[in-house]
Amino acid sequence: MTKYVYSFKEGSADMKNLLGGKGSNLAEMTNIGLKVPPGYTVTTEACLEYLEEGDISQKIEKQMKENMEEIEEEMGQKFGDTEDPLLVSVRSGAAVSMPGMMDTILNLGLNDKTIKGLTERTDERFAYDSYRRFINMFGEVVRGIPHSKFEERMDKVKKKRGAEKDVDLDAEGMKEVTEKYKDLVGDIPSDPWKQLVEATKAVFASWDNERAIRYRDLNDLPHDMGTDVNVQVMVYGNTGKNSGSGVAFTRDPSTGENKIYGEFLRNAQGEDVVAGIRTPLDISDLRDIWPDVYEELKEVCGILEEKYKDMQDLEFTIEDGELFILQTRTGKRTPNAAVKIAHDMHEEGIISKEVALLRIDGDQVEKILHKRIDPEAETKKLTKGINASPGAASGKVVFDTDEADERGSNDEDIVLVRSETTPEDIHGLVASQGVLTSRGGMTSHAAVVARGMGKPCVAGAEEIEIKSKEGYFEIDGKRIDKDDIITIDGTTGDVILGEAPLIEPKFTGEFEKLLQWADDIRKMGVRANADTPEDTEKAVEFGAEGVGLCRTEHMFFEPQRLEAMQELIISDDSQERKKALDKLMPMQKKDFRELFEAIGGRPIIIRLLDPPLHEFAPTEEKRQRELADKLGMDEDEIKAKVEKLEEENPMLGHRGCRLGITFPEIYRMQVRAILEAASETKEDGCDVKPKIMVPIIGNVEELKNIKERVIEEVERNVFEERQRIDYEVGTMIEIPRAAVTADEIAEEAEFFSFGTNDLTQMGIGFSRDDAGTFIPNYIDQGIFDKDPFQVLDQKGIGQFIEMATERGRKTKDDLSVGICGEHGGEPSSVKFCHGAELDYVSCSPYRVPVARIAAAQVVIEEEMEVDEGVDGY
Amino acid sequence: MTKYVYSFKEGSADMKNLLGGKGSNLAEMTNIGLKVPPGYTVTTEACLEYLEEGDISQKIEKQMKENMEEIEEEMGQKFGDTEDPLLVSVRSGAAVSMPGMMDTILNLGLNDKTIKGLTERTDERFAYDSYRRFINMFGEVVRGIPHSKFEERMDKVKKKRGAEKDVDLDAEGMKEVTEKYKDLVGDIPSDPWKQLVEATKAVFASWDNERAIRYRDLNDLPHDMGTDVNVQVMVYGNTGKNSGSGVAFTRDPSTGENKIYGEFLRNAQGEDVVAGIRTPLDISDLRDIWPDVYEELKEVCGILEEKYKDMQDLEFTIEDGELFILQTRTGKRTPNAAVKIAHDMHEEGIISKEVALLRIDGDQVEKILHKRIDPEAETKKLTKGINASPGAASGKVVFDTDEADERGSNDEDIVLVRSETTPEDIHGLVASQGVLTSRGGMTSHAAVVARGMGKPCVAGAEEIEIKSKEGYFEIDGKRIDKDDIITIDGTTGDVILGEAPLIEPKFTGEFEKLLQWADDIRKMGVRANADTPEDTEKAVEFGAEGVGLCRTEHMFFEPQRLEAMQELIISDDSQERKKALDKLMPMQKKDFRELFEAIGGRPIIIRLLDPPLHEFAPTEEKRQRELADKLGMDEDEIKAKVEKLEEENPMLGHRGCRLGITFPEIYRMQVRAILEAASETKEDGCDVKPKIMVPIIGNVEELKNIKERVIEEVERNVFEERQRIDYEVGTMIEIPRAAVTADEIAEEAEFFSFGTNDLTQMGIGFSRDDAGTFIPNYIDQGIFDKDPFQVLDQKGIGQFIEMATERGRKTKDDLSVGICGEHGGEPSSVKFCHGAELDYVSCSPYRVPVARIAAAQVVIEEEMEVDEGVDGY
Repeated sequence: MTKYVYSFKEGSADMKNLLGGKGSNLAEMTNIGLKVPPGYTVTTEACLEYLEEGDISQKIEKQMKENMEEIEEEMGQKFGDTEDPLLVSVRSGAAVSMPGMMDTILNLGLNDKTIKGLTERTDERFAYDSYRRFINMFGEVVRGIPHSKFEERMDKVKKKRGAEKDVDLDAEGMKEVTEKYKDLVGDIPSDPWKQLVEATKAVFASWDNERAIRYRDLNDLPHDMGTDVNVQVMVYGNTGKNSGSGVAFTRDPSTGENKIYGEFLRNAQGEDVVAGIRTPLDISDLRDIWPDVYEELKEVCGILEEKYKDMQDLEFTIEDGELFILQTRTGKRTPNAAVKIAHDMHEEGIISKEVALLRIDGDQVEKILHKRIDPEAETKKLTKGINASPGAASGKVVFDTDEADERGSNDEDIVLVRSETTPEDIHGLVASQGVLTSRGGMTSHAAVVARGMGKPCVAGAEEIEIKSKEGYFEIDGKRIDKDDIITIDGTTGDVILGEAPLIEPKFTGEFEKLLQWADDIRKMGVRANADTPEDTEKAVEFGAEGVGLCRTEHMFFEPQRLEAMQELIISDDSQERKKALDKLMPMQKKDFRELFEAIGGRPIIIRLLDPPLHEFAPTEEKRQRELADKLGMDEDEIKAKVEKLEEENPMLGHRGCRLGITFPEIYRMQVRAILEAASETKEDGCDVKPKIMVPIIGNVEELKNIKERVIEEVERNVFEERQRIDYEVGTMIEIPRAAVTADEIAEEAEFFSFGTNDLTQMGIGFSRDDAGTFIPNYIDQGIFDKDPFQVLDQKGIGQFIEMATERGRKTKDDLSVGICGEHGGEPSSVKFCHGAELDYVSCSPYRVPVARIAAAQVVIEEEMEVDEGVDGY
Repeated sequence: MTKYVYSFKEGSADMKNLLGGKGSNLAEMTNIGLKVPPGYTVTTEACLEYLEEGDISQKIEKQMKENMEEIEEEMGQKFGDTEDPLLVSVRSGAAVSMPGMMDTILNLGLNDKTIKGLTERTDERFAYDSYRRFINMFGEVVRGIPHSKFEERMDKVKKKRGAEKDVDLDAEGMKEVTEKYKDLVGDIPSDPWKQLVEATKAVFASWDNERAIRYRDLNDLPHDMGTDVNVQVMVYGNTGKNSGSGVAFTRDPSTGENKIYGEFLRNAQGEDVVAGIRTPLDISDLRDIWPDVYEELKEVCGILEEKYKDMQDLEFTIEDGELFILQTRTGKRTPNAAVKIAHDMHEEGIISKEVALLRIDGDQVEKILHKRIDPEAETKKLTKGINASPGAASGKVVFDTDEADERGSNDEDIVLVRSETTPEDIHGLVASQGVLTSRGGMTSHAAVVARGMGKPCVAGAEEIEIKSKEGYFEIDGKRIDKDDIITIDGTTGDVILGEAPLIEPKFTGEFEKLLQWADDIRKMGVRANADTPEDTEKAVEFGAEGVGLCRTEHMFFEPQRLEAMQELIISDDSQERKKALDKLMPMQKKDFRELFEAIGGRPIIIRLLDPPLHEFAPTEEKRQRELADKLGMDEDEIKAKVEKLEEENPMLGHRGCRLGITFPEIYRMQVRAILEAASETKEDGCDVKPKIMVPIIGNVEELKNIKERVIEEVERNVFEERQRIDYEVGTMIEIPRAAVTADEIAEEAEFFSFGTNDLTQMGIGFSRDDAGTFIPNYIDQGIFDKDPFQVLDQKGIGQFIEMATERGRKTKDDLSVGICGEHGGEPSSVKFCHGAELDYVSCSPYRVPVARIAAAQVVIEEEMEVDEGVDGY
């Protein structure tokens, strides 16, 4: 018979899939002897069965009952007993935790009879506080009644009774709240067993609620795992001054520092801490209040780190001075903390270099390089909150989540300002540059979610008074209106008026070391896509071993150059065209000289002009008039020319090498600029390795044509007068036809570079500009797991990469093959490139460290025969 | 030592590559005993060497001299002899003849000394007529002096001397012309040997002149073969009334009838006939004038057909009653004639069925089905000319070739009207619907070229007086202006004012028989692309075995349907949308019922909606207002919706199955209409085999999604109430990703159909709408041999076809695989599909016979192990 229910004594940490993250960890902690209130786990399998069948089978219920009986025996209490009732918590848990998204019911087992027993065993205020909490949570989780309805009633009672906070209410007050809640919710079963079954079903059902699905989508989590349900004996942090609840990280999740980090509330249940309703005390205060408990907690942290070999995030309750551990899980951390923890744990001898590297989530590495506010800059500091998620950001103040979502999605820079956030606010967070809250701490919802997204968050900025309805917030009488710009610095907690100047961060020593370990291990090269000397220097600083893609078209968009380019495009007069080219050539040459110096002898791949000419065309009437005057043409003629350049499908139009073939002057000018610059750089004693890359090749004849009619011709001219330098000629592989005829193309190319952006566009037939209208729907419906423009479509586009690499190397076994599409800095795609035996990946400078780490991880994973990275954060 | 020069006695017909078409045939005729003036051929190898070296080597010159000495011996004359000079013609010739494009020099060997000998041996008028012709041709061919300059001088002399035609000039006149020509040309070497060497070089060089390159491009001929040069003793058709020159076809090249066909001019050199300057006599008149010569010519025709096993086109000269054969080649013929000749030659026992089929040029078959003017229609007949190339066409009168080219290329229907055409007019002919000339006959330039292109031509309509400068032509005082519409019927020779109603042709019995032979031989099925019952009936009539592609989008463009479609697209109101769908559904169903009846139980593949929605969007303001009223929406809202539907790259946008996934209502409506129509058709006792094809599949998940959410759901509903019918679901393979993941897609598809139009667009990255700006240049530069949208790019796109077929069949070995892109009716592409083991091709109804023939030819070629089709026409 299938076992659907496991006592905490039966499970272990490696049963995550069946028992969920929470359940398996509770079992593990129970078994290593930590003080965990007894309980059991209803498995994820039961959840999936429930979701399929629509009900919990008798078999499952029977096993739940058997386990409950064991607990009753252990505790010497009875579930539903009127004198000394056993009360339980019911919590969901999944293999990967989803903070705040799944639901919890505490104090289950209370009804109008058992409340009497509880009252007698404890005190009336506590008992009714517990009861009203139960009804509240049951009402929300099982009956779906909005939280605000409970709040309203609570507020009314508080007002009536002159209580400022919940804790100010006495027993009678709590009783009144309880009655009001009961009226609100209506039919709560009085049979505790029925309560439990209904609660279990509700938790199971919540797996498929919208917020959960949204969160999983956002975090690339699978939808078919289900959640477990943990039923656990209640312990109480709210029995009085000698009790409390808290959360602790074994290390600082923000910086990675090796010290217990966290916060707690006295006389409070755990939910109060997480919800961020009261601002909690720092964990260090625990030492002063309950030194023994603090020491015990420290010990527990050590045991857990030793066991899990990773930083843990735990929940604890102190009931009348006794410490209970309610949960542990691998703690979420900032990218910077992840680096420091991985580094330190290796230095402390807990994990190997390899495991340390696997502990770094590739997607997060990019965010290590958070910007911060220039400390030298003069700024108007408004206030300071808790530095809840590092990095700095500026944006317009918006209070409404939906508005933040809409405006943020339209590329406005928004800072979302809320008193606190809830899971309903996630879409607004996603679209904002950062979030500022007036309540809650480091572990509040806003903080946790922002850290997960790598966005800056300043939390609990208590000086702020938000008047969202009136459209402003106040700090010390100073009014900040909606749409005013503010800057928040989640590294320091500062809130600044206006747009503060931001500066680039430096690598930490720990990160440098990890990257060094990665460089020792990885087999692929890592280059950067860089178009300017500044980008190039940044890239080298971040560890790029060369430039894998220098896009020359960006060089034409500066006003003076754009003018010359327009003269070139528009004029029919070959004299005028020559003049325009003569203007452009020295500018291009200067660009290249600067680039060659910046890259300092490393290889640099320069791509010849790629976009269609209409991108440069003068569309403004004023400019058309100017050109008409200058070129002695008719304005209408110019208009007609501009119109003629427009295309139905510019992506598949007259661009790249197609321009080089029909209009070779521009490429000749570019090649001349490259070769002259290279030669002069060499004459100046600087090493230079230019590689000329021809884009949009679909047919070897195109490459032959460009080589013969452009490159070789220019070469002859240039090296007649200047020092000869070695250079290479290669091509982008970005047209599907190029991939299948790569054997032919390799005859003419010394290197290939996969332009996976275009290869994805043509290979899947998705225009990047247009596919936005249906890609989200495609991902929702599971047609693609991920946006193929962000994460390489390995099954489809990956085949073109493999095919082209194999065929190209068949012709030329030393063919250099790399990738320069945006996928070159996306971890799973980098790993795929390793598998496809590419020589290097090239990506934006900020992603170079990502690629270095990912390229090492894949080697380690191969060696460990591990298919997936270590999960848990 | 390389042999660069072959006497006619040394060569044979199978040495075409080396001796060219003309040279090898002259040799062949010499050797089978026909009366051919002696001569020799300088090989194509010598030509290529010349083109490379820039000069004729001494080795070649030496061999030419040796051969000349042999001829001198045979003729008893000396080259350059002042008393009885040997005169020769120098003609180019290539393996494939290019009429009018290469150049000829007659009477070479004349100079101021030898002219005296010729004068004495013949008469002064003849001698100077010959001399002035030599100078004229030498001037044009070797010195590149325009023809018009000679004409001007000739006209001056004629005017001065009151001569109307050239023949009216007496000896003194010819002498004066000769002097004027000498002044014009200047330095003609007096040494005949130098004349010969210069002429030979000029002919060689002419291989690379623009016209020749253009012609080869147009006719898909290779550029690297070179031409030979034939040096042949002169015979004269212009020595008096007892002489003449002509061309003859062994069968009628227009109808294929088995009788000698051709024309001749008395007292004229061959060039006079071909140039179309004088309108010649019909060959049948030869019987009356010189019965013996006629009989001899008939005999020669028989010998040549027996030898070449094909219809021949020969040139002859009668010198003082003696018949010389100057050239023979496989004759160009109309597609209809080709069919009749192939059929008849098989019936006459000359060739096998297989050879008969190979004699049909696939590209031409389509043109067999020429339209003609409805004989029942009342038309305004303007005049009648020579029915020089069959078929009828209407268009606007244009006199200027460049204008015809430009306007015709912009899809205007043009009839080019010229007194005569020259090779410079080819681009105008290409762009016109047909050509009308006032001079020249069946073998004039216009006639030959038009027949080659399968375009209607009425030639020699002598009543017409063209005033091209004034912009009109006159017939019997009636003025027809430029841009007036006329209709020409090249089958009858009729010229009609206005647009005459045209009727569809019927197959001839001969063609039916050939197609029958083809059907017996071919292995691939042939289906048609047909969207309407009319198309479907036509397709079946032309031999289609089913419909391979029925495009349903065309069904939405009728006004009433378009309106409903627009309501569907624009409305946000689900009620309104349902209403629109409810309007469309019965119309679609009716469409399908009619189609099922028309195809009569044969398979029919119906493709669900393919184009993006914006193609249906209401762009006119008036219509937007109407819709606003109807749907109770704001006009601006509608405008905004229409704008939102626009895409940057619609080719790669929201279309095909992508619409079916995000917007399943339309597909559901279509599938319902198909299944209900099929079920009802079956209930009516009519067999029906519908196949539903889903377009733009790039990922098997898309197909799965459409099957589950659309097709299977609708199926359940429809067959609850109606008789169940069998149907299949398959997919287009038109996205490169679909080709590489065809193994996965085949899990869900019962058939594949290659949409090679889109596959070419995405595979090569060429937008069909935009690539027109560079494809011609690409073909000029040899990057693609042919336009990949017309002729399948076998090397590139072909690989996707092979890959997808192989992978698909690996998954499902009985997977039906076909092609429904336009390539499905293009002969070389059809042959490729056979090689790729496709089950069928599908093409437009008019191309069905092309495909039937080509599919048989490839089987024959495989069996004969012949790589290329029989060339020569």
